[in-house]
Order: sequence, then structure tokens, then C-alpha cells
Amino acid sequence: MNPKRYLPILQWLPGYGRATLSNDLLAAVIVTIMLIPQSLAYAMLAGLPPEVGLYASIAPLVVYAVFGTSRTLAVGPVAVVSLMTAAAVGQIAPQGSSEYLGAALVLALMSGLILTLMGIARLGFLANFLSHPVISGFITASGLIIAASQFKHVLGVEASGHNLLELLASLSGSLGAVNGTTLVIGLAVLAFLHVARRWLKPGLSKLGVPERPADMLTKAAPILAVAVTTLVTWGLGLDARGVAVVGEVPAGLPPLALPSLELALWRELFMAALLISVIGFVESVSVGQTLAAKRRQRIDPDQELVGLGTSNIAASLTGGMPVTGGFARSVVNFDAGAETPAAGAFTAVGIAVAALLLTPLIAYLPIATLAATIIVAVLSLVDFKAIRHTWNYSRSDALAMLATIGVTLGHGVESGILAGVGLSLALHLYNTSRPHSAVVGRVPGTEHFRNVKRHHVETDPHLAILRVDESLYFANSRYLEDLVMSLAAREPGLEHIVLACQAVNRIDASALESLEAINTRLRDAGVKLHLAEVKGPVMDRLKHTDFCHDMTGMVFLSTFDAWRYLRGETQYPGTSCGGGESAPLAIRAE
Amino acid sequence: MNPKRYLPILQWLPGYGRATLSNDLLAAVIVTIMLIPQSLAYAMLAGLPPEVGLYASIAPLVVYAVFGTSRTLAVGPVAVVSLMTAAAVGQIAPQGSSEYLGAALVLALMSGLILTLMGIARLGFLANFLSHPVISGFITASGLIIAASQFKHVLGVEASGHNLLELLASLSGSLGAVNGTTLVIGLAVLAFLHVARRWLKPGLSKLGVPERPADMLTKAAPILAVAVTTLVTWGLGLDARGVAVVGEVPAGLPPLALPSLELALWRELFMAALLISVIGFVESVSVGQTLAAKRRQRIDPDQELVGLGTSNIAASLTGGMPVTGGFARSVVNFDAGAETPAAGAFTAVGIAVAALLLTPLIAYLPIATLAATIIVAVLSLVDFKAIRHTWNYSRSDALAMLATIGVTLGHGVESGILAGVGLSLALHLYNTSRPHSAVVGRVPGTEHFRNVKRHHVETDPHLAILRVDESLYFANSRYLEDLVMSLAAREPGLEHIVLACQAVNRIDASALESLEAINTRLRDAGVKLHLAEVKGPVMDRLKHTDFCHDMTGMVFLSTFDAWRYLRGETQYPGTSCGGGESAPLAIRAE
Repeated sequence: MNPKRYLPILQWLPGYGRATLSNDLLAAVIVTIMLIPQSLAYAMLAGLPPEVGLYASIAPLVVYAVFGTSRTLAVGPVAVVSLMTAAAVGQIAPQGSSEYLGAALVLALMSGLILTLMGIARLGFLANFLSHPVISGFITASGLIIAASQFKHVLGVEASGHNLLELLASLSGSLGAVNGTTLVIGLAVLAFLHVARRWLKPGLSKLGVPERPADMLTKAAPILAVAVTTLVTWGLGLDARGVAVVGEVPAGLPPLALPSLELALWRELFMAALLISVIGFVESVSVGQTLAAKRRQRIDPDQELVGLGTSNIAASLTGGMPVTGGFARSVVNFDAGAETPAAGAFTAVGIAVAALLLTPLIAYLPIATLAATIIVAVLSLVDFKAIRHTWNYSRSDALAMLATIGVTLGHGVESGILAGVGLSLALHLYNTSRPHSAVVGRVPGTEHFRNVKRHHVETDPHLAILRVDESLYFANSRYLEDLVMSLAAREPGLEHIVLACQAVNRIDASALESLEAINTRLRDAGVKLHLAEVKGPVMDRLKHTDFCHDMTGMVFLSTFDAWRYLRGETQYPGTSCGGGESAPLAIRAE
Repeated sequence: MNPKRYLPILQWLPGYGRATLSNDLLAAVIVTIMLIPQSLAYAMLAGLPPEVGLYASIAPLVVYAVFGTSRTLAVGPVAVVSLMTAAAVGQIAPQGSSEYLGAALVLALMSGLILTLMGIARLGFLANFLSHPVISGFITASGLIIAASQFKHVLGVEASGHNLLELLASLSGSLGAVNGTTLVIGLAVLAFLHVARRWLKPGLSKLGVPERPADMLTKAAPILAVAVTTLVTWGLGLDARGVAVVGEVPAGLPPLALPSLELALWRELFMAALLISVIGFVESVSVGQTLAAKRRQRIDPDQELVGLGTSNIAASLTGGMPVTGGFARSVVNFDAGAETPAAGAFTAVGIAVAALLLTPLIAYLPIATLAATIIVAVLSLVDFKAIRHTWNYSRSDALAMLATIGVTLGHGVESGILAGVGLSLALHLYNTSRPHSAVVGRVPGTEHFRNVKRHHVETDPHLAILRVDESLYFANSRYLEDLVMSLAAREPGLEHIVLACQAVNRIDASALESLEAINTRLRDAGVKLHLAEVKGPVMDRLKHTDFCHDMTGMVFLSTFDAWRYLRGETQYPGTSCGGGESAPLAIRAE
């Protein structure tokens, strides 16, 4: 057992030097400035008090620095996970109640335990069952729901709902109660952030500012909006004119507390915790891998599970909400020059200082400002182009994507993911249950065989070579029987059928039964069944079966060997399957 | 639209002649004799009055003759479906109540509608998701449960339970109440049937009786047992000594009646109806295909669904239970010389006559006799050897089989099938998520490339050829990234990586993203990515993608082309992917 594998901090801490320290410190300052408004905003999105967001940005970052494998991932509350937290906890208790907060802590703890256990059991591959179109569709739909849910704060009205339809209905019902001052603040921040995102960086570049600092400044726009609107609200006393503000936030370090261990609550939250874990992990790992590749580093997905899991456990024990690696802030961390996870630990110190000292300043921060920062951030996640793009490449993938978007928008986040995963698995199985296959012929002058319908190739009336482009397993084994028998029925002069198995990566027990049936039926019809290009692992298994023993034909190393021998062009006899050797003598001699 | 396809009766009725008629009539007489005790026994197994079994053997046979595609399949109540009926209906109402009977009719109607709709929608392939090991395990477990459930009748005691554990516990609790006379009858019939099955046929053959009649006589042993024990019970008045008998069965033709259309009941029975439909269909189709192949006939699985579906609808409208094609009786029908489904219709007439005239004779038939016939029949379905056989060939398949057996025995029939199907799908996906792959080299003197670890092959330090033995899709796309990048990291002198795609039958959108990522990362590392042996349908899709445009390397028709060109042995340039043509000029010119 290698301790460096399970405690990645040991890989970088021993060699930590002054130059690395100053780089990490600079990155930490920049990420802290970005993370303060994000923490407050995502806590609000999750329906939690603002300090919960700050707490979730302290202990988890320190723990991730110990157990995480990405050098530059910045952990904390993120939009999609916050939305999923709100959806799950909202079914347990009303927002603002102590049960609501308690359930959020339980969710973080469960999610942390699930991730850690998955990591220890090396189950990181399970996340692969979330296909890219499903994730992409889910994030687009979540972005729309989040934007719609935050729009009420820009308008200064009440509205609620678990999906887009409910939200829009609720919003339109309360349009009469719009607060003008709030709307002005909200729209101003929206406009400012939009302009900053779109034109600030090119503008600064034109003024001669280098690309990186220009990018940093652009990403710091939200903190400027927060500072200005807070000052204006305080200076003009706008809170007295109906502008909702964050209000008093308790100053202090995160509390230590054990979340509820009530079994019934855990059971109710289990599915939500599982989905939050997987979605959070997938988002985080893809950010981590992208950044690692840029510097020729690698991350270990199974250890990442442990890193994120322990971070969530730390969040739940210190009054925080579920966290994961965030895309935008990790990129900022990377671009600002962070070299090790120590940058994350320094960020945690920055947030802790903010939690201790800055909370009195936050009291006059308008909620509309936070809502506007969220809206601008999540709308950048909405990617309609990906739908058309996917549709052009693969109808199956696009269907899974559309189902994910549709169900998420129309019903809710959990059912949206489940529908997407279920449909993508079902479509995959359906596709493999009717595999592509081709009768192939010889490309003249070569040892190469291609589809008779696509290429000009030589064929032989006594010999049909069928290439099946799929592993043979229960879902397509009966299809194979039909395929071979209809080929035999179509060609009356046929004496040999060769199954070219280069695409057959597995033959399961059901398919073996089908091969036995095919062999028997072809024998009765006077046609011999041969195999060619059987892969090593497949042949190893076939060797000891009754099918192999009863097979009427031979096993050839290559399709070309079968072609030459069965047309009488060589004496070389191939090998009978029962002989227990698939490699012919000619090869073994070398 | 071809009416012969949807009304298979049109295929054989127009040419129906005298010779066929006499063959069909003989087969019908033999099957009728066999079907009378079976119908009574399986009705009892399903917890239904004996006449329900007879009714289910009349109308469905006539309807199947019109819509079914197998010439020799004999439809009626079968053991496994009867067990599943008892399990499903037993959760709705107590045995013997009119609700119990009503629910059984609803089950037949729903199952009929499901099958018919599946046939019309051409969803026969769905049955393929029941893998062979799952079916085999399910039938073995069902056989054990049925035998245990019938053993109480041999002992003359009361016992009940939904799974083997409950049944055995219940049986052992009532051993004190065994009825001696019943036990003598039951054991005598068991011994007789066992001996007949084992030694009657060889014995008759030794006496010079030809094989077929010997086989027929053996299969008629149950009717002999029924006749003798009924006579003895009547003659000695054994029913007065505690021997349970069938009792009065109403004489007459099946009643016409519409089953309940209550929505709540339909919802409760839906899952059971679906499983009964699929299990019944799979059993029936495999019998039908086996028999059809023996005479060079074919059956159409989708039309079979319609045939079995309409048969079940007919059963439910005439007071019958769910039916399907039975194995033993179909083989008898075939061996007795049946040529067309008319034999089934004649059998229906025979059963109708029995229902009209023979029911008074059945009153004294001991239930122990019926139970003994069931036990002997189902124990022949129990196949423990298949477990070892499957284990030796494939651990995954054996696990699915054992799970099916374990859950069926320990929990119940429905959960048993669902567990088996779920596990076999999960194991299949798991296997494909970590595909077999091999670095390949050239078999000297050939154009053939094989695994460097298994064969003596030529390799090149600047060139790695990786063959991935699986379609690339979401579940394994991230695995592919790891695989290629670790190969690139291992070989410092590497300039080219060729992905040999002969086993890649599909590249979905997630895998395409992974290929893009691989291409970018390899480019940054100074390694070019090439593809070889990309299949037509895969290439058609890749052509129009950004990946194809951005690819650093080329697409080669064969691995050998890549090998020669990348080692500088030929001038032939391959084609760039963006060129929109995968077939090189050399081939296109022909």
C-alpha cells in the first residue's frame, strides 16, 4: 500500500518551496474575492442562510488539499448541486425552518459518505454511466430552472416551484407585486455583469492589458457589483423602500456539529444524496482532468471520490452545504497560477477571515444582486447549440439529451437525470440487440475483406463470409440465429458459412446456445459452419465447450486463410476447434 | 400488406387435404388424452377450479390455429405460468373466492392484450433481454417450488407459501396430520410415473415396439394413473376415508364472460401480467423454433406474439386461465405426426367433448394423483447440471443464473425474474465498460496483426497500434482516454498511435468527445493519432464532425496500410479524415 496514493498531500508537501508559496497565495487571494459572493449566492439558491455558503467554503477546502488529487481544483458550493439540494430538502421541510437546515447538513454528510465509500470500493467507473449528452442536457435544463427561480428576486416578488412550468406560472401570477427599486438594482447588475462578461475582457485587451489580468478583472466583476449595490442600499436606506437585503449574518467561525442520524430522514434523502454525489463527481472530475492535462498531470478518479467525499463530510460537520469542484473558480485558480492544493487551503483562510470580519458589511447586500450574479453565471451553462450538434451526430444520444432536458424542466431534477440515464442505457441496449452485420468479400490483391455492398470485392458462390459487428450476447443471440439461417436460405449453392469474429469481443452463454443451434441447423441443411479471426480471450473460452467439439467446420486465424483453404487454394487445413489450439501450426512454429 | 402474414391460417388451409386431415386427427386424439389430466392439474396448481383448466384448453387452441405461425405448437395451461398465476392472484384474494377466479381471468386478458400489442408493435426482441441462464435458472427454481407446493397434496395436509422457505416451513409444521391413504395413493402414482418415465420406453423398445409408439405410450402414463386411482377411490369409497378428490365438476361448454375492467385491479396485476407474458412467450417460441427447424419451417416471433396474445384473450373470455405453448405436449403433437395447427383445433374439440361428457367421471379423481403428475413433470425441468456448465463457461452468466434461482426460491417468482434480468444487464454493462484491448503487432510475412502478448509479432518503437475490442460508448469512453494516455506515457519514443477500429461498431457522442480530448492531449505531447479499419457506418458519421477535421493523423483502410506508410515503406498517403472519403484512391479506382 502506497501512502502517497491515499494521501496525495504527501506528493507535493515535502517539496513545497517559497516560489510555490507565493504563486499559491496570489491565486488564493483572487479565488477568495470570487468565492465570497458565490458562496452567499449559492446558499441562497439552496434556500439556506448565507453563512452556510461561507462555512461550506472553509473546512472542505482544507480537507480537499489533503485527500484530493487535482492540483488546481477549487472546491465549494456550485450552482447545480445547490439547485439539487434545494429540490431534495424542500420535500422534507419548509425553507427557513431548522429542519430544512438540518436536512441540508444530512444531505452533505450522506453525499460525503457515498462518495468516500465509492472511492474506497473503486467504483469511480459508475459515473461513466452518465453519458455526456445526459450531463450536458441536465446542466442546460438546470441552468434554465435556476435562472427562472432567481428571477423572482430581481423582481422583488414571491414565487416557487420544482420545475420550470411551476416556476413560470408562479412568477406570472405575482407580476403585480413587483418592487420598482429592487427591479432597478437587479436589472442594473444584470446589465453590468452581462457587459463585463461580453466586452470587458476585449476592451481591457485593447487598452493593452495582458490577457490573464484582463480575464481576472472580468471574473471579479461580481464582487464589484456586490460592493457598489451594498453601499448604495446602505447609503440611500433602500432596505426601507422594500429592497430585500441579506440582513444580519452571524459573525464567527463555522460551528462544529453532528448532523441528525435519524434513519427515516436518511432513507428519504438517499436517492437525492446519490444523485448529488454522482453529478457533483462527474462535473468535478471533468474540470480536474481538463486542467491536469494542460500541465501534463494526472488525477486519479477513485482518489478524487475520496477527496470530494471527505470534503463533503467536513462541510456537514461544520454547518456547511454539499460541495464539489466548481468550473469557473477552478479555471480562475489555474489561470492565477495556483500550483498545489495549498492554494485551496489559503482560500479557506481568506473565507474564514471574511466570515469573522466582513459579515456586518454584508447586511445591506441586496438579494437582487446575488440573484443577478447567479442568473448570469448559470445562463452561460445553457448550451442549446449542443442539442443540434448532438442531433446531427447521433439520434440516440440526442434523444437521451432531449429527454433529460424535457423531464428536468417539466418534472424536476432527480427525475430528469434518472430519465436520461435510463433512456441512454435502453437505447444502447436496443442498438446492440440488432447489430450491424455485413457479408464481406475480398478486396482484390489484398488479404483484406470488406462489405460487398460498399466495396468492389471478390466473392464465391459456395462460400459466405458474414461479419457480425457486435459482441454476441443474450440480447442479440436470437437475432444472430435469424441472420445466419436467412443467409443460408437465400443462397442455395452455399457449402460454407464463415463467421468473421474480429468484432466479437464476447460470446456469453446465451449466444453459445445460439451458436450450437446454428451449427446443428446448418449441418442438417448441408452447410458447414466455420469461424475466423476469433480473438484470444473468446477462443480460450470456446475451446472447452460442446459447441467447439460438435462444430462441423474449422477455426481459421484469418479470414484470408479461410478464403484460400475453402476455395481449395491451399492445403493448409486450419485447425478443428476441438483440437484445443486456435493458432495454426504455421504461426506457432515461428 | 400481406394477409398471409397476419392470418397464417391462410398459408395452410387452402391446401388442406385428406392425408393431412388423418395425420392431424391422430395427433389430436393423442394430445387430448395427454391434455385432460394436465389441464386439471395445472388449474389446481394455479389454485383454480378444475374446469378452468379444461376451458383454457378449448377456445385458445382454436384461436391459435388461426393466428399462430408454428405448425405443431400445442397451446394450453403450463406449469410455470400456472405457478406465476397463483403467485400473482394470491396477493389479490384468497383461493376459492370468486375474486380469485375473477383476477385470474383478468390476468389472462391483460397478458393477452400485452402479447398482442407487443406483436403488433413488433416488440418480440424485448424477450431477448431474458438471457438463457436467467430462463434456465428460473425454470429450475420454479420446478422446485411447484414440486414443494404439490407435495402437501401427496401427504394430504394443508400448507402454503410464496417461496421455497415458506413452503418447507409450512409443510414441516403439518407433518403430524398426514393422511395415510392419501400418502399411499400419492407415492404409488409417483413411483409409477417415475418408473414409466425411466424404464417404460426402453422396456417397450426391447419388446420390439417401435420408438415412436413406445414414446407415446410412455407419455400417456399419467392418464392411466388417473383412470386407475379414480376407479380405486370410487370402488373402495376412499373419499370417505379422508382422501381429497376433485369433486363435482360442472359439465358443459365454457361460459362466455367479460372479465372485470376495474382499473385498480388491472394496475395491481400489471407487472405480473407482463412477466407472465414474457416468460410464456419465451418458453413457447423456443419450443416452436426447435420443432420448426426440424422440418425446415420457420416461425415469425412477432406473429407468434399475436397468436399467443389472441389465445389468451380467448381464454379469458371463455372462463379460462393464462396459457402458452407447452413443451412436452408440443413434442408429442409433433411426434404423433401433426402437420398443421388444425390438429390443435381438433384437440379443442376433444377437450370440449370431455368437458361435456367426462366430468362426472372426474369427481372421484384423487388430488394426490394430480399432484404426483405435476411433481414428476416439473422435476424433469430442474437442471442442476446447467449451473455447473454455465459456471465453467462464464462466471457472469452463472452469477445471473444463481441470483435468479436464489431470489426465486427465497423470495418469489416475480422478484426472481426481475433480479435475474437486472443482474444480467448490469453485468453486461460492467463488462463492456472495461473493454478488452491489445497492443498488436504484425504477424511476420502477412498483413495480419495480433496481440503482442499472445503471438510472435513485429513491432516498431515509433508506432503503437492499439486495438480496442468494444464499441466506444459512454460507459467506456473515459476508460479509453486513460488507456491511450497511459500508453503514450509509457513509450517515450512514440510518434504515432493507431487505433485499430475493427471491433468498434459504434462511437457515440460521449466517445466522440473522448476522442477529441485524446487527439488534443496527444497533439500537445507530440504524438499523432491515426485510425485504421474504421467500419463504413462508423466512418459515415465521423466524416462530418469537428474531431475528423481536427485530427492530427490519417484514416487508413487497413492496419497494414498504416503500418507500411507510417514506417516509410510506401508513398501512399492514406486519406485525411477531413477529406470526406475513407476509402483510399487505390480501392476507389477499381
